[in-house]
Amino acid sequence: MRLRNVKGASAIIESSDYIIKDYKEYKGKYKELFNNDNPIHIEIGMGKGDFIIGMAKKYPKINFIGIEKFDSVIVRAIEKIDEEIPNLKLIRMDATEIEEVFDKEIDCIYLNFSDPWPKKRHADRRLTSLKFLKRYDCLFKGEKNVIMKTDNRKLFEFSLISFTNYNYKIEEISLDLYNDDIKDNVATEYEKKFHSLGFPIYKIIVKK
Amino acid sequence: MRLRNVKGASAIIESSDYIIKDYKEYKGKYKELFNNDNPIHIEIGMGKGDFIIGMAKKYPKINFIGIEKFDSVIVRAIEKIDEEIPNLKLIRMDATEIEEVFDKEIDCIYLNFSDPWPKKRHADRRLTSLKFLKRYDCLFKGEKNVIMKTDNRKLFEFSLISFTNYNYKIEEISLDLYNDDIKDNVATEYEKKFHSLGFPIYKIIVKK
Repeated sequence: MRLRNVKGASAIIESSDYIIKDYKEYKGKYKELFNNDNPIHIEIGMGKGDFIIGMAKKYPKINFIGIEKFDSVIVRAIEKIDEEIPNLKLIRMDATEIEEVFDKEIDCIYLNFSDPWPKKRHADRRLTSLKFLKRYDCLFKGEKNVIMKTDNRKLFEFSLISFTNYNYKIEEISLDLYNDDIKDNVATEYEKKFHSLGFPIYKIIVKK
Repeated sequence: MRLRNVKGASAIIESSDYIIKDYKEYKGKYKELFNNDNPIHIEIGMGKGDFIIGMAKKYPKINFIGIEKFDSVIVRAIEKIDEEIPNLKLIRMDATEIEEVFDKEIDCIYLNFSDPWPKKRHADRRLTSLKFLKRYDCLFKGEKNVIMKTDNRKLFEFSLISFTNYNYKIEEISLDLYNDDIKDNVATEYEKKFHSLGFPIYKIIVKK
C-alpha cells in the first residue's frame, strides 16, 4: 500500500473510541470489552477498513476487531465510520505481537490481500507462513478458522501448501471468486481495484 | 473427448505388444512384466497418449502404464508409438476396476485433464473423489504420490478439498502452469489445446 503521512493521524487515533489503546490489558478478557459472549472475529492487516466495517454492519451478533500497523492507514478507517458500530474495535499494532494480545478467545481470522513478501528470504513475514500459523494457534477459543482472500497467485499457492501442511482442512475454495456466487461477499479496497482490473480473486476457508 | 468409431480399432489393439490384455493376471507382479525393479507410474485416463508416451521416452528408468477405457482413443496412442519403448505398457479398462489390477506396486499416479463430471450427482465419478482416492490406497507400494493437471477450475477446486481432506499434503501447486517454470513439463493433447486458447492450466503434486 502506498503510505502517505496523514496530518493529525495520531491525534485522531488517540481520540477515537474505536481504537483499543491498552490492547494487551484485555488479553483473555475481550468479551468484557464488548460486554457480551458473541464470537470474536479479527482481521489482520485491515488496511483502510472497508471489509471489517462492512462485516461489522452486516453481522451485528459477531464482534469484529481490525488490526493494522500503520497510523496513516488506520486513520482512514476511523474516518469511514459514519454510524455507531458497537461490535467493532480497532487495534494499531504489528501482527508479530498477536500472541501477546489474545488468548483462546478468537473464532475466526481474516487475512485479506496480505503483503505477499515475494522474496524467498522474507517468506516468514507472510501472514500464512508456518511461523504465523503457529502464532495463531493460541488465539483460537476452539475450532480454528481462517478465511483468506488475495489476488496474488504466488501468495495463494504458498498459503495452500502452508495451511494444509499445518493440518488445516480446506472447507471452501474459489480460484475466481467473481465468477462464483458471491452474494455474501464483503469486498476490501484492494479487491475492488484488482477485480476491476480483471485479475481473478482467490478465496479459501480453512479449518482445524 | 469426442469419440469416433475407429475402423479396425479392436484388431489393432489385439495385435499390439504395448497392450496388456490379461492385466488382472499381473496383479502384484507388474515388475515381472517389465523384468526390472524400476518404479512404476500409471496415468489413469491417458487419452491419445501424448503424455505417457512423452514421459516414457523422457524417463527410461521409470516404467509407465497408460490406462484408457475407450478402444477408439487408445488406438490413437498405439498409432503414435514410432520407436520401441520398452518401459511403456497400455491397458484398456475402466478406472473403477483399478483395485483388481494393481497391488502395492505403484509409485505415482497421474491424472491429466480428467472428465470433470460437472453434475453434483456424478461427483463420485470424478477421479479425485473420495471414492477414487480410497481405491488408490492399496495400489501404492509405499509413499502415495498423485500428480494432477487440468484446465477445469471446478474440478481443481473439488480435488484440492478432496485430497487435503483425505490427508494428502500439497508438495507443489501452480494455478497458472504456463506462467511458471515448465521446462520439464510433458503436455497432453488437451493441455496444448486449452493453453493455446488462453486458459490457465492448474497443476498439483500431492503426497501422503
